[in-house]
Amino acid sequence: MNNETSRYDIAIVGTGPAGLSAAITAKVRNKKILLLGSKNLSSKVEKAHAVNNYLGLPAVTGENMAKAFGDHIDQMGIEITDQKVGTIYSMGDFFSLQLGEEMVEASSVILATGVVQGKPLPGEDEYVGKGVSYCATCDGQFYRGKKTIVIGYSAKEEAEADYLAELAEEVVYIPMYAGDVNTDARVKVVREKPEEILGEKKVTGLKTDNGVIPADGIFVMRDAVAPSKLVPGLATEGPHVVVDLQMKTNIPGCFACGDIAGTPYQYIKAAGQGNVAALSAAAYLDEKKRNANA
Amino acid sequence: MNNETSRYDIAIVGTGPAGLSAAITAKVRNKKILLLGSKNLSSKVEKAHAVNNYLGLPAVTGENMAKAFGDHIDQMGIEITDQKVGTIYSMGDFFSLQLGEEMVEASSVILATGVVQGKPLPGEDEYVGKGVSYCATCDGQFYRGKKTIVIGYSAKEEAEADYLAELAEEVVYIPMYAGDVNTDARVKVVREKPEEILGEKKVTGLKTDNGVIPADGIFVMRDAVAPSKLVPGLATEGPHVVVDLQMKTNIPGCFACGDIAGTPYQYIKAAGQGNVAALSAAAYLDEKKRNANA
Repeated sequence: MNNETSRYDIAIVGTGPAGLSAAITAKVRNKKILLLGSKNLSSKVEKAHAVNNYLGLPAVTGENMAKAFGDHIDQMGIEITDQKVGTIYSMGDFFSLQLGEEMVEASSVILATGVVQGKPLPGEDEYVGKGVSYCATCDGQFYRGKKTIVIGYSAKEEAEADYLAELAEEVVYIPMYAGDVNTDARVKVVREKPEEILGEKKVTGLKTDNGVIPADGIFVMRDAVAPSKLVPGLATEGPHVVVDLQMKTNIPGCFACGDIAGTPYQYIKAAGQGNVAALSAAAYLDEKKRNANA
Repeated sequence: MNNETSRYDIAIVGTGPAGLSAAITAKVRNKKILLLGSKNLSSKVEKAHAVNNYLGLPAVTGENMAKAFGDHIDQMGIEITDQKVGTIYSMGDFFSLQLGEEMVEASSVILATGVVQGKPLPGEDEYVGKGVSYCATCDGQFYRGKKTIVIGYSAKEEAEADYLAELAEEVVYIPMYAGDVNTDARVKVVREKPEEILGEKKVTGLKTDNGVIPADGIFVMRDAVAPSKLVPGLATEGPHVVVDLQMKTNIPGCFACGDIAGTPYQYIKAAGQGNVAALSAAAYLDEKKRNANA
C-alpha cells in the first residue's frame, strides 16, 4: 500500500456519529475513504436510552439510532474496516497509519474516536512505549514469550487478549466491566482493580487492590485512546483535540470531530462536526491538488 | 410581558434546522422557550432536492426532511410563533425583542435566522432607520399616509405589502421571484429590477432598471436580515456572526448557530450547532441563577 495510487484520500478513525457523518459526506464528495472502527457502530450509541434531541429522529432508542445510521452507510455503499488503529504518523505530505502489523497511507485524516473517560492510571503515561500499549495487534509481536496483562474496558477487548495468548507466555485479563468473560483457555481472568503501573525504566508489573501482578507488557484497552498518543504532535487540551470551527487541528490535513473535539458530548453535535470535518478535508485535498498542478 | 415572570428563558429566532434543533434541546432542558419563525419551517429545506448527508435520514427529499423535523417538534409539544422579529436589543441582563408592535423579553437569545445571500442594495446600509426597514409590521405605523415600496424576495412577503396597504397612501410591490403575485387590490405590483436606494438624509425613492419610483419608505424583505442589523452591537465578519465552538457571540447571553454562524451551509452542521447553542444558553441561565442566589 506504500505508493500514491493506493493511498486513501481520507482515513476516518471512529464509527460513532461523527465518523459516520464524515464518511457519508466524504462519499458524497467522491473521495476514496478508509473508515476504521467497530462494525457494531458506536457501542455507546447502542447503549443509549431514548434520545430526544437528534433532530429528525424523535424519541429514538439507541438501538434504532444505530440501525438508522447503519442503514444510511449501507445505502451509500460505505464499508467499515474493523481494525484497531495504532499510532498515526504525520509524514508531512501524507499520514501513515499503523493497522495491526500493516501500515496504510492517507492524504488526510479525520479523528472521530470519541473521548477517553477518566484519568490514566498512575504510571501509565510514564511507561507508554516502555511496556504500556494500547493495541495488542500492533505491539503484540514484542511480547513473544513474555508476561502480559490486558486491562479491558469492554467485552470486545477479550479478542485482544485471545490474540496475545498466541504469542505471549502469559496473559492475565482484567475485565473492567460486569458480566461474563469468554476468553481463550490460555488467558487467565483476574477480577482485581488496577491501581498503578509499576516499573523501573520499563514496566515490571501492575499493582492492584489485591497485590502485584508481574508483567513485561500491559495493554490498556479503553474505548478510546488519548489523542496525543494516537497522533504524535497533535495539540490537545485535557482529553480533547484543539480544533477551530472548521474542525482543523494544528496538523495540516488532520481534522477532528465529535466528542474528541470537545464538549458537549451529543450525537447531533458529533454528526454536525463530522460533516464539517469531511468538507474541510475535501477542501484541503482540492487545494493540494491545485498546488500540485500549478 | 414586561416583568420577569413573563420573561422567556430562551428566544430562538429561526425555524430552519439550527433553530429547531436548539428548540428541542432547550425543551429537553425544561427551559421556557419562544420559537420565532415561519411555520412552514425553512422554505429552503422544503425546496432542497434529495439530501444524502443528514446522518440517519438517507436520501431524504427536502419535503420529507421538513416533515420529519415538523413531526419531531410536534411530538415534543413545541409551538412556533409565526411573527417577524424586528430589532433585538441587549439590555444587559436580558434581551428585548421587537415583535410587530409588541416588545417581548427573554433572558437569552439564539440567532438561527440563516444567512443573507447577496449584497445589500447601493444606499441600503446608508438609509437604514431613515426610510429603509426590514419589518413592515414593526415600522409600518411610521408610514401612515406616505408612499412606500416593498421589495419582496419570496411570496410570503406579499402579506407585508397587504398590511402596509392599510396604512400607507401608496404601496408599490416589487417581486424578486418568478410566478404569480396575489396582493391586495390597493398594492401596485411592479416588475422592475431595484438598482439603488436614493435619498437626501432620508429615503426619497428607488432607482430601478426602468426609472425612479418616489417613496418615503422602502421595505427590503429578504429571507434573512443581516445579523448586525438584527442585534445592534453584535460582532460580525461579512454576513456571519462571530462565534466560538460553544456558539457564543460577543454579547453575553446571545448565541448563534447554523448558516448565520458561518460556512459550510449544511443541514446536519446547522442541527449540531443548534444543539450546542441551546446547551450553552442553558448553562448561561444556570450560571446566572447561581450568581443571583449567591
